[in-house]
Amino acid sequence: MNYNMDDTIAAISTPPGCAGIGKIRISGEDALEIADKVFYSSSTESLKKVESHTIHYGFIRDKNNKDIDEVLALILKAPKSFTAEDTVEFDCHGGSLPLQGVLDAVLSAGARLAEPGEFSKRAFMNGRIDLTQAEGIMDLINSQTEKGRELAVQHLKGGLSDHIKDIREQLMTILAGMEASIDFPEDEVPGFDSDRVNDKINQVIDTLNELIQSSKTGQIFTEGVETVIVGKPNVGKSSLLNYLLKENRAIVTEIPGTTRDIISELVNLGGIPLRITDTAGIRETSDQVEKIGVERTINSLQTADLVLLMLDVSQGISPGDYKIYQEVKDKPIIILVNKTDLSKEIDHNKIEENFPDGRIIYTSVQTGAGLKELEKTIKDEIMAGDVKGGYDQIITRMRHRNLLEKAKVSLELVIEGNKNNIPPDLLSVDLKDALLSLGEITGETVTDNLIDQIFQDFCIGK
Amino acid sequence: MNYNMDDTIAAISTPPGCAGIGKIRISGEDALEIADKVFYSSSTESLKKVESHTIHYGFIRDKNNKDIDEVLALILKAPKSFTAEDTVEFDCHGGSLPLQGVLDAVLSAGARLAEPGEFSKRAFMNGRIDLTQAEGIMDLINSQTEKGRELAVQHLKGGLSDHIKDIREQLMTILAGMEASIDFPEDEVPGFDSDRVNDKINQVIDTLNELIQSSKTGQIFTEGVETVIVGKPNVGKSSLLNYLLKENRAIVTEIPGTTRDIISELVNLGGIPLRITDTAGIRETSDQVEKIGVERTINSLQTADLVLLMLDVSQGISPGDYKIYQEVKDKPIIILVNKTDLSKEIDHNKIEENFPDGRIIYTSVQTGAGLKELEKTIKDEIMAGDVKGGYDQIITRMRHRNLLEKAKVSLELVIEGNKNNIPPDLLSVDLKDALLSLGEITGETVTDNLIDQIFQDFCIGK
Repeated sequence: MNYNMDDTIAAISTPPGCAGIGKIRISGEDALEIADKVFYSSSTESLKKVESHTIHYGFIRDKNNKDIDEVLALILKAPKSFTAEDTVEFDCHGGSLPLQGVLDAVLSAGARLAEPGEFSKRAFMNGRIDLTQAEGIMDLINSQTEKGRELAVQHLKGGLSDHIKDIREQLMTILAGMEASIDFPEDEVPGFDSDRVNDKINQVIDTLNELIQSSKTGQIFTEGVETVIVGKPNVGKSSLLNYLLKENRAIVTEIPGTTRDIISELVNLGGIPLRITDTAGIRETSDQVEKIGVERTINSLQTADLVLLMLDVSQGISPGDYKIYQEVKDKPIIILVNKTDLSKEIDHNKIEENFPDGRIIYTSVQTGAGLKELEKTIKDEIMAGDVKGGYDQIITRMRHRNLLEKAKVSLELVIEGNKNNIPPDLLSVDLKDALLSLGEITGETVTDNLIDQIFQDFCIGK
Repeated sequence: MNYNMDDTIAAISTPPGCAGIGKIRISGEDALEIADKVFYSSSTESLKKVESHTIHYGFIRDKNNKDIDEVLALILKAPKSFTAEDTVEFDCHGGSLPLQGVLDAVLSAGARLAEPGEFSKRAFMNGRIDLTQAEGIMDLINSQTEKGRELAVQHLKGGLSDHIKDIREQLMTILAGMEASIDFPEDEVPGFDSDRVNDKINQVIDTLNELIQSSKTGQIFTEGVETVIVGKPNVGKSSLLNYLLKENRAIVTEIPGTTRDIISELVNLGGIPLRITDTAGIRETSDQVEKIGVERTINSLQTADLVLLMLDVSQGISPGDYKIYQEVKDKPIIILVNKTDLSKEIDHNKIEENFPDGRIIYTSVQTGAGLKELEKTIKDEIMAGDVKGGYDQIITRMRHRNLLEKAKVSLELVIEGNKNNIPPDLLSVDLKDALLSLGEITGETVTDNLIDQIFQDFCIGK
C-alpha cells in the first residue's frame, strides 16, 4: 500500500449551512497535539492527558490568541475511534465562518485537509471496517428510502461481509483439498473426489446466483420502483397518480392530452417507495409538443420496473391499447380496467384474452372501486422477488454484482474442467480467481487503485 | 414566566444535507431516560448511570427493535450543559433518513420536537447565558464577515453584557442615593448633591453615546461597507471594480453605458469587507433600459456607507460630475480623478475647489497608478469611526441600539428635572426607566413576549 497514514487529517464533517452545531474532525498520530495547540480551557490543561471518550468545554484560538469559537472537544483515543487512530472532534457553532475559522486554525497547527472519504479509508486501512461496511456507511448517508436505509445499516454492521466470508471459507476448504492432491500428483489422493468437489462448488454457485438475483431487490429497495402509468389520453392516469399521492399535484382536466410532461412522484406504498411517472397518453398525434411527450413515454417504458396500463372500459379496448400492451408486455405489468362506474357491461373474457400476461384489476378511480386491491397487487408484484435470506444477503452495488458474476464464471470453469479431468493444479488457478473476486468485495484482496476509486466517491469529512 | 420547562425537547442540530456526521440533541429532565429507550450498546447498560461528559458507542433502535443508525452518544448532565439541563447528543451518520429516523425514535420515546431557538431559550431561562450572549451565538452562526465573527464571539463570551451591567451598577448607586433622600424628604440628605448626580449621569450618557455610535461600526463589521462606485459612463468604474476583485467579473467594454445592471461584489480589504456596487453611469438618457439603471444608481446612493466618485480627467470636469457630487456629498466620499495617464495637465486647484468635501485621489486604473493609495484611503475612511473601547463595546443589533436610545432619553429627563429642582422621588421614576431599558438588553428585565420574539428568529436545533 502506498497510502501514507503518518500525517494527521482534518475536515468539516457536517453539511454546509447554518445550524446550531457543526463539527470539525481531526484524526491521526498528532491529533491530540494539534488540538492542544488551538484549544484552551479553564478546566483542562492538556487534551493529551485526559481519558478517552470524554468531552471538554473550551475555546479555539487563532495564532494571535483571538477566540474563534466556543466549542466542545470530544476525545476518542486509538484504537477506539472510527478511524482506529487518535481522534479529536470539535463541536462548534454551525455557521460557515466559525467552522472555517476553526478548521483553518487546525490546519495551521499541523493537520492536513482530508480528502473525500479519507476518514473511512483510514478506518478500512486500519482494519476497523471492510469495504462493504464502508460502502454501507455511504449508502446509509445517501439513502433515499426507508428500505434502503435499513439495508445500509445491515451492511455497515458487517452482515453482507460475513456472508461473503462464509462463501470464501467454503471455497478455501475445497481449495485446500485440491492443493493436497497437487502435492501427490500421481496418486489417488484420499479426500479428492471430483464429483463431490463439483457438488460443493455447485452449492456455492447457487448461493452466488441468489446474491446476484438479489441485486434487483436491492436496487428497488434503495432507488424505489420505477413505475410508469400508461394508457390513452384521458383514461384517468393523472387521477390515479393523485389518488396514490393523496394530494393534487398533477393537472387533472377533461381535455385529452393535458399531461404533456413526464411527472415523477415518490409514493410510499407500505414501506416500498414507488417512483411513479405519469405519462402523456400514447396516441398518434400531429401536435409537436404532444409528440415529444409521447416519445418520452415510450422512453420511460424502457427503464420501468413496473407498468400500470390503464384501459377505459367505457370506450372498450382500442387498437391503441393493444399497441401499448405489445410495447410493455415483457415488463411486470398490471392491467387496470378503469371507469367501471361508466360501463354497465364488461366483457371479462375478451379482456383476459387480449392481455394474457398481466394481472387484471377492475377499478374506478372516480368512485375508488378496486384501488385497495390495486395497492395490494402492486405490493405483491414487487415483493415477488423479495428477500429469501434476510437483508444480509441483498446486494445493492453494481461493483458487488460484477464481482459475484466474475466469481461465478471462474467456478463454472472449475466445474467444466473437473468434468474433463483437468488436473487439480490447473483447476486451482480458476478457484483462486473466484476467491480473489470475492475478496475484492470485502477488500481482503484489493489494489491501491480500487481503494482510491471507491473512497473518492465518499463525501468530505467521512 | 409562562414557558414550560418540564418537558424534554429534541431536534436535529446540524444543517440539512449529506455529510459524514449529523447530530440529534435532546435536552430536559427525561433526556437520559428517553435516550436509554432508543440507545443500546454492548458496553453501556444505561446512560443514566454513566459519568457526565462521556461518550458511548452504540446503536439506535426503533420500536420494532430494528437498527436505525450506528451512533456515538454524548452525555452532558445538568447543570454542565449548554441548556443547564440533562442533555444527550446522538452523533449519527449525516444523511437525512438516518437523522430523521433517529429523531422519530427519540420523539416516539417521549421527547417533544424543539421550537426554533428553544435550546438557547432554556439556556437563558436557566441563567446559563443572558440575552446578549444568546444573540451573540446567533450572530456567530450567521456571521458573514471575519470582523462580524470576532465581534459575535466577544458578545457570546459576555463582553457586551458585562459592559451593560457596569453601566447599570453605576445607575443603581445613583438610585440608591436618590432613594435615601426620599426617605428623608424634608431634610437635606448628606450624599445627595444634585450637581454631582447630574455629573455622574452625564458620564453614563457619554458611555451610552459611545455605544450608540458604535452601532455604525458594528453594522459595517457584520454586514460589510456598502460601497458605491459612481460616475459618468465609461469613466472606468467596472475596471476599478475588477481591480479590486482581482478577477474579471463585470463586463468591461469601450461602449459607454454597458453596465446596465447593479453588480454587487464582496471585496475583503485588509479584513474589512466591502460590498461594492458598480453602477450604470449617471447621465441624461432616453434609452429605457439604461434609464432604469440610472434610477437604481441613485437609489443605491441612498443606502451607501461610502461613495467612490470617479472623474475622467482626460475629459475634464463636466456639469454631470458636479451633479453627482451634489447628490452624494453628505456621504463619506472619495473623489477618484481617473485616467491620469491620458491627460498631461491636471488643474489640481480647480478640482479641489469643485469638490471641497471629499478626499481626492489621482489614479489610473489602466496603469495602476494611485490604486494602492486608494485602498489605504478607503481603509482610513472606514476605520475613522473605529473601536475605542474594544469589541465588548461595539453593538450590532438594532434592538440594543433602540434600548440604549431609550435609556438615554430617560437619563436626560433626570438631568432636566434635577436642574428644575424636581424632587428625587419623581426623578427616580425616570432613572428606573433607564435601568429597565438597559436590563432589557441583557434580559435582566424582560417580558415573556420579548423573549418569544427574540428566540423565534433562532434556527432549529440551537
